[in-house]
Amino acid sequence: MMLRLDRDSRTPLYLQIRNQLREMILDGTLSEGSRLPPERKMAAALGVNRSTVVNAYRELAADGLVEARVGRGTTVCRPPLPPTPQPPNHLTTQPPNHLTTQPPIPLTPHPLVWNEYFVPRLEGGRDPLLRELMALLARADTISFAAGIPAPELYPLDDFRQAMAHVLNTAGQTLLQPCPVEGYYPLRQTIARRMADRGATLRAENILIVTGCQQGLDLIARAFLRAGDEVVVEAPSYLGALQIFSAAGARLLGVPLDEEGMRVDVLENVLIRYRPKLIYTLPTFQNPSGCTMAPRRRLRLLELARRHRVPIVEDDPYGELYYTGQAPSPLLALDQDGCVIYLSTFSKIMFPGLRLGWVAAPRPVIERLSQIKQLADLHCSTLIQGAVHEFCQRGALDEHLGRVRGLYRQRRNAMLAALAEHGPVGLEWDEPQGGFNLWCRLPAGLKARQLMVEAAARSVALVPGEVFYPDGGGQEEIRLTFSCPPVALIEEGVQRLGAAMTVLLKKRKSAEERRSVEFAAQPIV
Amino acid sequence: MMLRLDRDSRTPLYLQIRNQLREMILDGTLSEGSRLPPERKMAAALGVNRSTVVNAYRELAADGLVEARVGRGTTVCRPPLPPTPQPPNHLTTQPPNHLTTQPPIPLTPHPLVWNEYFVPRLEGGRDPLLRELMALLARADTISFAAGIPAPELYPLDDFRQAMAHVLNTAGQTLLQPCPVEGYYPLRQTIARRMADRGATLRAENILIVTGCQQGLDLIARAFLRAGDEVVVEAPSYLGALQIFSAAGARLLGVPLDEEGMRVDVLENVLIRYRPKLIYTLPTFQNPSGCTMAPRRRLRLLELARRHRVPIVEDDPYGELYYTGQAPSPLLALDQDGCVIYLSTFSKIMFPGLRLGWVAAPRPVIERLSQIKQLADLHCSTLIQGAVHEFCQRGALDEHLGRVRGLYRQRRNAMLAALAEHGPVGLEWDEPQGGFNLWCRLPAGLKARQLMVEAAARSVALVPGEVFYPDGGGQEEIRLTFSCPPVALIEEGVQRLGAAMTVLLKKRKSAEERRSVEFAAQPIV
Repeated sequence: MMLRLDRDSRTPLYLQIRNQLREMILDGTLSEGSRLPPERKMAAALGVNRSTVVNAYRELAADGLVEARVGRGTTVCRPPLPPTPQPPNHLTTQPPNHLTTQPPIPLTPHPLVWNEYFVPRLEGGRDPLLRELMALLARADTISFAAGIPAPELYPLDDFRQAMAHVLNTAGQTLLQPCPVEGYYPLRQTIARRMADRGATLRAENILIVTGCQQGLDLIARAFLRAGDEVVVEAPSYLGALQIFSAAGARLLGVPLDEEGMRVDVLENVLIRYRPKLIYTLPTFQNPSGCTMAPRRRLRLLELARRHRVPIVEDDPYGELYYTGQAPSPLLALDQDGCVIYLSTFSKIMFPGLRLGWVAAPRPVIERLSQIKQLADLHCSTLIQGAVHEFCQRGALDEHLGRVRGLYRQRRNAMLAALAEHGPVGLEWDEPQGGFNLWCRLPAGLKARQLMVEAAARSVALVPGEVFYPDGGGQEEIRLTFSCPPVALIEEGVQRLGAAMTVLLKKRKSAEERRSVEFAAQPIV
Repeated sequence: MMLRLDRDSRTPLYLQIRNQLREMILDGTLSEGSRLPPERKMAAALGVNRSTVVNAYRELAADGLVEARVGRGTTVCRPPLPPTPQPPNHLTTQPPNHLTTQPPIPLTPHPLVWNEYFVPRLEGGRDPLLRELMALLARADTISFAAGIPAPELYPLDDFRQAMAHVLNTAGQTLLQPCPVEGYYPLRQTIARRMADRGATLRAENILIVTGCQQGLDLIARAFLRAGDEVVVEAPSYLGALQIFSAAGARLLGVPLDEEGMRVDVLENVLIRYRPKLIYTLPTFQNPSGCTMAPRRRLRLLELARRHRVPIVEDDPYGELYYTGQAPSPLLALDQDGCVIYLSTFSKIMFPGLRLGWVAAPRPVIERLSQIKQLADLHCSTLIQGAVHEFCQRGALDEHLGRVRGLYRQRRNAMLAALAEHGPVGLEWDEPQGGFNLWCRLPAGLKARQLMVEAAARSVALVPGEVFYPDGGGQEEIRLTFSCPPVALIEEGVQRLGAAMTVLLKKRKSAEERRSVEFAAQPIV
């Protein structure tokens, strides 16, 4: 028996021994029943530690190629059979069934420990608070002020069905073929026209179709961010964006909001001090706060971005859902300098299940994002793009928007009225002019987490403010979303919420009284 | 005038000077017309280089806040006006129009240079060879042996239209709502059942729905790869995968193929030497080579993966498109150890415009990929998933597959016959048992690039082999895809291709003859 060890190899010595012996067993050089040299002898012959040989023999035994028995040493077994054509598959998490009559040969002494193979994630795991919330939302009887989606009963299903049938009848084959990574050109033109109606002059070439705002943000993060880069976000801000930027390894710089939107005075200091890579803002009917950036703040924000040469990412899913007057012009429409990357989506104005949104930006940005999208998923479904284009073309989107603006306004008004009626003293809220969300500051000492639990006991779901903050804060704030429940349920839900707050406030008061009694009972020293 | 410089700040000194002077100008501390200290004096007072002050003044001048005139020094201007509410937008690539009566105040002396903001890309730019090819494919009269998509005239449009109408009528609202990131559960069940028919026992929970194989590969790269990691790929291999792995910064280790698929003997050396992170393989009707890994190689590959603890990524878009007998079992079906991550897609068996595929893998992998997909785009279109599920349920997919297998077999046979008739001496090709692709080795000395140009002149498109190699090679190989052109065009196209090869071979021969004549004419010294 000849073994050759290569001491310069990256393969450990015990594996070299194992591999060579294995070859000899498999090719018959070592026949069944033949005895391997005792470990000590083998180690001396090869000039290695005994433990090296022990490890090699153990590996062979684990593979079923040798057998070690006291008094007989280590003998070669028959090589294991190749796996049967359709073996039980270990993909499921269930343990293999050892009760079958023919137990499979144990070829897997050590299945892969997958976690050792994954790139470590930069952001933390999912917030346990959000997990609790998701479990709550799954209950059918819950009145949800948590789900930020359009109301399913308002979906323009008939019109969409007609648009889909029409395109499948007239352009079917074309719409089942691949399309350019930037998107289906007629849809890009339609979006450019719609943006022009909102004051932003751009061409179809400035539009990239993406799988919702989420993909737009992910592509932007991949294009712009490296671990350690800084990104300005509003505090509070959209949770999905915070997760994407964190996952890219970016440090989030939270700039507070007031009733006029992002505090641009604070922003300027942040820009000077940190030179961040991007400014991320939802200037219109912000998620989660519902607030809208004032026109002069918009101009100032653009001026700061230009001066400090920091691109703005404007996320605008709600701009067309205004309930008083018109929405303000997007930053994109005010931008003279081409420093705004604009994102929006059909998810809030049509249906969330479409997964279709767009980025509007200067050509160099569209080109780079397209390169990344090509790697990420080639392009969005041509068929969905064609159907949405047809839906817009036949005027169905504008008609639908007119209808839902009225209905969401009613729901917002119902929530405002119910809060005024059932909200305890000390509860404060803002009046959103559009979008889906209303922001509340709780009475002093009332914690949003406690309220979430107490409200859940009454089958009402809300989102505690703290999940929207990049760096702490929001413990006494909550987001109430009014888009989904009909007016009667909004009234019912807010009434229950008011009751939950009142209970918590009473508990707190009696605890305080107990404490002051205890304090009074202390002997004076 | 008081300026304070912070030499420990991350903000360059010239910007600190600029920022402080700007504040003074904007808040009126420095009024219009007042003079800034000469650069030399200012530099001495602050203890900085003169160039630092020069740069600061230049920035202020660029912002229109100061003006430098010979003999007058640097004086403060009136602060620029804020931009007008709806100015012309500079998003388009057209230059601003300077012929308007009121030229806008030049607020943007330096628009953003976007390339400076992008994360540098790890992979090279797009191959110019591929660009040429794309231009060629865009021509309507081209007979394309290059596009690796199913034939549009074979799309099962009627059945799909019915499936779509049915789900929109019966489950419309549900299918326009969000779905879990892992995918629409009934579709995951359907896929699991179909995989079971191919020998892989798994549950719906082992399936993740993705936007085509492309997204599956991208998610895998994001989950497993860091810059500098090694990935084993076949040489040649699928171009999209090579691009994704390269973009992730991975080093590609090419393992050659022969008629039985990946050379597992070479693979073993590579595994021992480099300890790569993943093994990427297309074992069945490989793209581009058309070859299929032999059953015993499959077992050996699985054994090596298990022994060396390297996960296998099995890409299988063509497994159901077999033209002789049945396709071999996927690696996934033979895998006893749970070390295979399997990918497939509806793009090749239905339509490419759907953008729908799936990953089948052990739960830990599905969980990690889902976390990344949630960041990337939340989930795939619920509607498309519902329609494809319905299409499968009503048996339309199996019926369609039965039909197209026969048609693609005819096209493959037509190409084989035409190559035998029109191929020049020295041309060699393999006979694919399924899929879309046929691989040719050109006669000695004939280069694929030259042939691409010569064939293009005859309106025939092919893909030169070299684009499929991770590390050089393939200069004398080409891929011919037979899925799209009907039989008559395949015959016509191969005939033209044969003529192109003959012309190039003749040119080469006469050039060689000239050289030998010239050599013979040399005086003998």
